[in-house]
Amino acid sequence: MRIDHIGIAVDDIKLAKKKFESVFECRFSKESIVMAQEVKVTFALLENIKIELIQATSSQSPVYPILPHPILTFIKKNGWGLHHISFSVSDIDASLKRLGALGIQTIDSQPTTGAEGMVAFLNPVHFNGLLIELSEV
Amino acid sequence: MRIDHIGIAVDDIKLAKKKFESVFECRFSKESIVMAQEVKVTFALLENIKIELIQATSSQSPVYPILPHPILTFIKKNGWGLHHISFSVSDIDASLKRLGALGIQTIDSQPTTGAEGMVAFLNPVHFNGLLIELSEV
Repeated sequence: MRIDHIGIAVDDIKLAKKKFESVFECRFSKESIVMAQEVKVTFALLENIKIELIQATSSQSPVYPILPHPILTFIKKNGWGLHHISFSVSDIDASLKRLGALGIQTIDSQPTTGAEGMVAFLNPVHFNGLLIELSEV
Repeated sequence: MRIDHIGIAVDDIKLAKKKFESVFECRFSKESIVMAQEVKVTFALLENIKIELIQATSSQSPVYPILPHPILTFIKKNGWGLHHISFSVSDIDASLKRLGALGIQTIDSQPTTGAEGMVAFLNPVHFNGLLIELSEV
């Protein structure tokens, strides 16, 4: 098992990039937009893992526009913070099938397009609130 | 730069171990006590990174016993959650000196003994609430 990246929610991706780059001597990619989640993200490739910085691009949830964007809700509660860990899987459908057999459900009914490939978030209810992503990379 | 481990706060280390082991097909170490922080921890060695599960062993803060243990405060707010990321450093004193020159302070004035070597937590105020550990491993 391999963790592809650690997702960190921030409210100012440019400031966070600058801070991480100066303190941890790493280099972040150009920001990209993940349409399905209404976020912009940037990645730094460390020696053994990637760090993803995530900022909301909308004030509303992409899924339920009546709600605030979950990244904003997270930031309001925690400030910048560790938002999710993403496990690499080679076949996301097969992984979800295996997890489904263990009773683990996903938030969305289908994998969606992430920044680097298909992704699916496991329902945090199965991990007492902890958010885990599967990422087909 | 290398991230040694991701620390996950839990309220029931045995249950969390079992959950992670069945879902992510990994194996956690025997639990060990970190006296200085009044926690018990267990590690799973994944392909590229370790996961640490952390449970408080006391209801009070090891530093300010008038306060509740910070892991319990965290759990009350978040449930199980991503508590910190720990960067590997080869010389913790040299790293703290370099960070000090950038204006980054630590929570404790000196590194303390962690589960696997000397550790120091950076003051989260520098990262808008995000908790980062340096770990000499």
